[in-house]
Amino acid sequence: MKINGLQSRSIWLEPDGWSVGIFDQTGFPHRIDRIRLTTCEDAARAIRTMQTRGAPLIGAVAAYGICLALREEASDEALERAYRALIATRPTAINLKWALDEMVAAVRNRPRAERVSAAYRRAADICDEDVAICEAIGRHGLPLIEAVAARKKPGERVNVLTHCNAGWLATVDWGTALAPVYMAHDKGVPVHVFADETRPRNQGAALTAFELGQHGVPHTVIPDNTGGHLMQHGLVDLVIVGTDRVTAQGDVCNKIGTYLKALAAHDNGVPFYVGLPSPTLDFAVGDGIAEIPIEERGGEEVATMTGRTADGRIETVTVVPAGSPVTNYGFDVTPARLVTGLITERGIVAPDREALARAFPDHPSRGPAQCRAASA
Amino acid sequence: MKINGLQSRSIWLEPDGWSVGIFDQTGFPHRIDRIRLTTCEDAARAIRTMQTRGAPLIGAVAAYGICLALREEASDEALERAYRALIATRPTAINLKWALDEMVAAVRNRPRAERVSAAYRRAADICDEDVAICEAIGRHGLPLIEAVAARKKPGERVNVLTHCNAGWLATVDWGTALAPVYMAHDKGVPVHVFADETRPRNQGAALTAFELGQHGVPHTVIPDNTGGHLMQHGLVDLVIVGTDRVTAQGDVCNKIGTYLKALAAHDNGVPFYVGLPSPTLDFAVGDGIAEIPIEERGGEEVATMTGRTADGRIETVTVVPAGSPVTNYGFDVTPARLVTGLITERGIVAPDREALARAFPDHPSRGPAQCRAASA
Repeated sequence: MKINGLQSRSIWLEPDGWSVGIFDQTGFPHRIDRIRLTTCEDAARAIRTMQTRGAPLIGAVAAYGICLALREEASDEALERAYRALIATRPTAINLKWALDEMVAAVRNRPRAERVSAAYRRAADICDEDVAICEAIGRHGLPLIEAVAARKKPGERVNVLTHCNAGWLATVDWGTALAPVYMAHDKGVPVHVFADETRPRNQGAALTAFELGQHGVPHTVIPDNTGGHLMQHGLVDLVIVGTDRVTAQGDVCNKIGTYLKALAAHDNGVPFYVGLPSPTLDFAVGDGIAEIPIEERGGEEVATMTGRTADGRIETVTVVPAGSPVTNYGFDVTPARLVTGLITERGIVAPDREALARAFPDHPSRGPAQCRAASA
Repeated sequence: MKINGLQSRSIWLEPDGWSVGIFDQTGFPHRIDRIRLTTCEDAARAIRTMQTRGAPLIGAVAAYGICLALREEASDEALERAYRALIATRPTAINLKWALDEMVAAVRNRPRAERVSAAYRRAADICDEDVAICEAIGRHGLPLIEAVAARKKPGERVNVLTHCNAGWLATVDWGTALAPVYMAHDKGVPVHVFADETRPRNQGAALTAFELGQHGVPHTVIPDNTGGHLMQHGLVDLVIVGTDRVTAQGDVCNKIGTYLKALAAHDNGVPFYVGLPSPTLDFAVGDGIAEIPIEERGGEEVATMTGRTADGRIETVTVVPAGSPVTNYGFDVTPARLVTGLITERGIVAPDREALARAFPDHPSRGPAQCRAASA
C-alpha cells in the first residue's frame, strides 16, 4: 500500500541484498522512520519493543531474523539459538512459531553452505505468501461489504468497526481485517471505518487511522469505550478484526478489548468477522480462554502516552498517579460463539472444529492428536 | 474524605461566607488546585469545562450557581437566566435539572429580600443531603463486599471493578459506587479496586486511582479494554459503577463504555451493581437507549492526552494523525436486563419499573403520567 504517496511493503530487503528494512512503527503517525536490521538480535529487539508488530509481520521479521543469524554462523547450534531468541520475543501470536518452524524446515537438512541462500529464499516466499493470503482475504471479505452497500441507499456509507491494527502495517501488504476495506474502497464502495483507539498502545489511532488516511479511506477514531454505544444506535454495519491466534474450535485471540466488541456486536445483531490468514491458525489449541498464553507487558505502556506537542516535539507524558499500580494484558480471547465467520484465504469459514478441519486438512499445526480431536 | 492527608469535601463555602470553593479536577492527579467561584458564570464554566464533574457534584455546584446569580440580582428574570445558563452546561446527568428545580422551588414564592439566604440554605442542604445519601449507599452496598469476603480465604482480597469516577470527587463526599468500597476498607475488609482508565478523559486513572490512593485503598489502573479478560479469568468479584441517570424501567446511563463492562459481567456471571442516589432517578424517561440525550464533546478530548513529563512539566500531546476525524460520545446506556441491582440510599432495588416505583413513590420526577406508567 502507499505511505507518503509511495508504494511500499512493511518489510523489504535493502539494496545490499541481505540486510532487512522495516518501519519503526513506534514513531507513527508522527515520524516515518525506517530501520535497518543486520543481526538476529536486531530482529528480536524490533519485535520485542514493537517497532514491528502485527501477527503476520512478526512472522516475516522473525523469518529474516533466522537468515541474519545463519549469515553469521550456519551451524545447527546457531539455528537453535536464533530460534530460541526469536520465539521468546512475544508469546501470544502463533505466526511467530509458524514462521520459525517453516525456516527450520527449509534449512535443517541442507549442508551449511546452502543454508543461508535457502533461508533467504524461504523468508522471501513467506513474505510473498503473506501478500497473496491477505489479497485473498480481501477478495473473500469484499462481498460482505458489498452486500451491506446493496441494502443501503446509493452513496450511503458502509460502517465497519475495527479494533487495533490489522491493516497492511500488521502484515507485509494489504492487511487482514482491512484488506476487504481497501478492496471495497478501491472499487468505489463508500466504506467508512470506525477505528478503536486501542489503548494502551494506541495502534488504532496511531496505525489504523494513519494507514487509512494515507490511502484515502474515510475513517473516524473513537475511544475503545464507544463501539457499544454506536452499535446500540445502528451506526455499525459490521465488525472486522484481525487475530493473533485462532484455535481448532474457532476461539479468536486478538488485541485486548476485542472480546468486549464481540459481546456488543452479538448483543446488537451486528456481524462480527475475523480476518484470518491460515498461519494464524493453531490446531494444537482447543479452548482459547484456558490455553493461550496471554502476554503481560510493562505498566509504563498504560501509565504513559506519547504524542506530539503543539510545537511539534514528541513527548511522553504520565497519566496515572505516581504510586498507582497498573496491569497490562496484551490480548484477550473471544469465544467462537460470538464470531460470525472467519475470513480466510480459502473463503469464509464457520468458527467451529468441523468447518476449520475441513477447510484446512493440510495445516502444519494438525498433528495426529489434533486430527483425532477435529474428527471427534 | 482525605486529600493530602486533610479531610475535605469536594465543594465548600469560602470563609467570606458566600463565594464557593471547588477543586480544579482537570489538574488531578498532577496538580491540586482550588478555584473560587464568585458568579453564576463561574459555576457554569466550571461545569462545562469539567473542572467540576460527577452527576451529584454537578447538582451541588449548580445549586450554588443559583445562589451566586441571586446575590447579584434576586428577580424572577435573573433566576430564569441562571437556570437556563446552568441547565445548558451538560445535557445527560439528570441531577443538574433536579438540583436547579429544587433551588427554584426553594426561592420562587419568597420576597426578593429573602431569596438569597433561602437559596444558600437550600444549596447547603443539597450538599448535606448528598453526603447522607452517599453514606447510606455505602452502608447498603457494604454487605455485598462483605459477602464476597466471607466466601474467600481469610485475607484474600475482594476485587471490585469500576468505570470512570463515582467516588467522593464525583459527589460532595463518600461517592456513590466507591462509598461501599471506602466503608469496607475502613472496616478492614481486604478490598481492591480495578479502576478502568476511562478514555477519553481518564477519570479512572486521574481521579479514581488518585482518590483511592489518597485514602490508602489498594487499586490497579487498567485500560478500558481489560475488564472482559479479567472477568473471563475470575479476577473480578463484582462491578460497581455510578450513573448520570437511571430511568423508570431501570436503564442506566453512565460514562461511555459502561455498557461494554455490563455485557462482560453478564457473560461471565459477575454481579453488576450501580450506586444510585435518588436525585439521579428520572421517572420521566422509560427507554434509556431511545430517550436519554447523549452529550457529544469535542474531538480534542480523544485526539490529545494531558499528563506530566519526566521532568515535571504538564504537557498536552496529540495521539491521533493530523486530519483523522474523531467522535466523542460522553455516555452510553446499559439496559436494565444487564444490571444486578441498584444500590440506593433506601437499600438495593431491582432495576425494574415496579421495584423502583415501590422504593420511590414520592420521587419529584414522578408526574401523573409517570405514576400511570409505573403502575401499568
